[in-house]
Amino acid sequence: MPKPKAINYEQASDAVKAVFDDIKSSRNLEDVNNFWKYLANDEKTLRRTWESVREVMAPGAIDPLVKELIYIAVSITNNCSYCIASHSAAAAKAGMTEEQFNELVAVVGMANETNRLVNGYRIPIDPAFEK
Amino acid sequence: MPKPKAINYEQASDAVKAVFDDIKSSRNLEDVNNFWKYLANDEKTLRRTWESVREVMAPGAIDPLVKELIYIAVSITNNCSYCIASHSAAAAKAGMTEEQFNELVAVVGMANETNRLVNGYRIPIDPAFEK
Amino acid sequence: MPKPKAINYEQASDAVKAVFDDIKSSRNLEDVNNFWKYLANDEKTLRRTWESVREVMAPGAIDPLVKELIYIAVSITNNCSYCIASHSAAAAKAGMTEEQFNELVAVVGMANETNRLVNGYRIPIDPAFEK
Amino acid sequence: MPKPKAINYEQASDAVKAVFDDIKSSRNLEDVNNFWKYLANDEKTLRRTWESVREVMAPGAIDPLVKELIYIAVSITNNCSYCIASHSAAAAKAGMTEEQFNELVAVVGMANETNRLVNGYRIPIDPAFEK
Amino acid sequence: MPKPKAINYEQASDAVKAVFDDIKSSRNLEDVNNFWKYLANDEKTLRRTWESVREVMAPGAIDPLVKELIYIAVSITNNCSYCIASHSAAAAKAGMTEEQFNELVAVVGMANETNRLVNGYRIPIDPAFEK
Amino acid sequence: MPKPKAINYEQASDAVKAVFDDIKSSRNLEDVNNFWKYLANDEKTLRRTWESVREVMAPGAIDPLVKELIYIAVSITNNCSYCIASHSAAAAKAGMTEEQFNELVAVVGMANETNRLVNGYRIPIDPAFEK
Repeated sequence: MPKPKAINYEQASDAVKAVFDDIKSSRNLEDVNNFWKYLANDEKTLRRTWESVREVMAPGAIDPLVKELIYIAVSITNNCSYCIASHSAAAAKAGMTEEQFNELVAVVGMANETNRLVNGYRIPIDPAFEK
Repeated sequence: MPKPKAINYEQASDAVKAVFDDIKSSRNLEDVNNFWKYLANDEKTLRRTWESVREVMAPGAIDPLVKELIYIAVSITNNCSYCIASHSAAAAKAGMTEEQFNELVAVVGMANETNRLVNGYRIPIDPAFEK
Repeated sequence: MPKPKAINYEQASDAVKAVFDDIKSSRNLEDVNNFWKYLANDEKTLRRTWESVREVMAPGAIDPLVKELIYIAVSITNNCSYCIASHSAAAAKAGMTEEQFNELVAVVGMANETNRLVNGYRIPIDPAFEK
Repeated sequence: MPKPKAINYEQASDAVKAVFDDIKSSRNLEDVNNFWKYLANDEKTLRRTWESVREVMAPGAIDPLVKELIYIAVSITNNCSYCIASHSAAAAKAGMTEEQFNELVAVVGMANETNRLVNGYRIPIDPAFEK
Repeated sequence: MPKPKAINYEQASDAVKAVFDDIKSSRNLEDVNNFWKYLANDEKTLRRTWESVREVMAPGAIDPLVKELIYIAVSITNNCSYCIASHSAAAAKAGMTEEQFNELVAVVGMANETNRLVNGYRIPIDPAFEK
Repeated sequence: MPKPKAINYEQASDAVKAVFDDIKSSRNLEDVNNFWKYLANDEKTLRRTWESVREVMAPGAIDPLVKELIYIAVSITNNCSYCIASHSAAAAKAGMTEEQFNELVAVVGMANETNRLVNGYRIPIDPAFEK
């Protein structure tokens, strides 16, 4: 199988173009980024992912910047370079400062460490946490 | 090797007691939770972890509740039940609402999904993200 | 330590050459790929891995193409780029279509998401699943 | 925060009941399993996840049983017990034999091993895989 | 599918019994542990895994106790409770002290933390490491 | 946000220079490697990580070379290329032979495989391991 390729606007089917247009107008962008261009290899995945991301990342009980920080935290834990880069860009646009980024990385590192201290010592859940 | 056991205050060395006292007074608790009681199997790990957690989780550019949300995000990604339970309790104490918890889980799920869409399509980083 | 290097046929010991020859004739290849050339740094790992892969990936109750899809699913989850590339190539050779690859990525993404929804809500196993 | 709880049909909002009814009729079940009852803590996550799972797991270029095998492969890799149990049940319903399950576990084990051999030897992608 | 079950010696096929006998005599045990009894659901996986484990864990350039420590390190990172328990038992038998176990957990925790600091800051490999 | 950058000695604050000097003299190096130069983006993370690494990796009940092997084992499992490269270099400096590296990779691969066999068969912990 050849390596997957980006689908650019010009080559895209009408269904893909419609999603691209929606992303560009919702986010006020001149072009969509590679993530969407590669998902466009499968119209269904593209449309479903865009609808889900739009719903999940919308302002709600947690503000959009914090949602971006959470996204980066997961991406650092999973070592997804693209995801760290793209959501760092999105977070910066939403107002993340360099100090916030640094503290985020520190918390993610610490959580990954203490997760393993818990595993290593096979620590049982305190009954108080279950109430 | 027998399964690791909790070290309770009464059995603890003076060095361990000193850390336990510091945790209890800093966090206004009657007793430390299992995490600290198991780390007490190694005085050095206990002391170093407490000093690090206290520094990393202190109010700073990111507020403490958001830091707890990030901690939970990592713990859900790594499937650490104890960590999810203990940091959900800490987050609730810091003001997390049920709506916020639900949105957090949704974002973490979505990030884990899109991380794999990126891996699957081997998506290259957009040059704009690197500037 | 210098970065590990590929062992090419010409430089290889007789024991390594014998495994390379077996791989080439079993799979009808002109040369083995980098995976085997790097494993050749350790004759025992090379031989054991080849014997295991040959046995595990052979036609059985699950057909070879489906086994390749499963291999890719694990490799996407673990973010192993080499493994995604090599098993995508193997799957394509075994008949995987582009539509199948796209659906595979969609299922893997979804499974990684719902795994975390389960972790986040700490969902207990339904008794019916255990019977 | 109290431990998340299942939302049963009787307690559910009308919106949740509507999703539950759809799951039950689509899958011909008397009751939904715990996964859906816990997701019901967040109507939006419940609805979105159900719509996505239904679309992704539908018959397509890959048949539904193979999709279940892929789901189990990801869940074994991530060590999600609930997910392994529930998708093993679903796979069995879709026709998975015990021999197929055994081969699946063997392939998943092998893929997780060779993923790490690749990481350890830092193996570069063969140019032939990129064409 | 019913939950997988242990295959005890009495119920086992002759081929499985032969592997069980070999494990018991090689390791001087009265009975094999659950790991082998569950693998016995698939004779091929049982035999292949036993042959591989015996070869990989044998004394060599790295001594058997250190190999057990490495096994535990991987198992803590992956959060495999069974594996942590069984290899802690094996390590204790091979001479691991409580102090060594504690230091092991500390190193594993630290490595998991610094792995994420590296991911977060997207640190490029120093040219000196590649020579 | 621009991609994080290395902080070189000349640009560093006095506090960062002090940590760099301590690393260089403790480890007898002419310059610190990229890991420390990137952590220097956050003085607190730099100092805390250096103090923790120094304490955790010091000779103790486990010798420093074995600690490096454990570090590599975790990094291979997590697929952190930088970490594999830097700790392979450190291990080589501490005396790791090529044979030891090869055996290490073999053990890590095997542990990642058997961890998944355990997950797949949902193997319960033998009571003997808990005593």
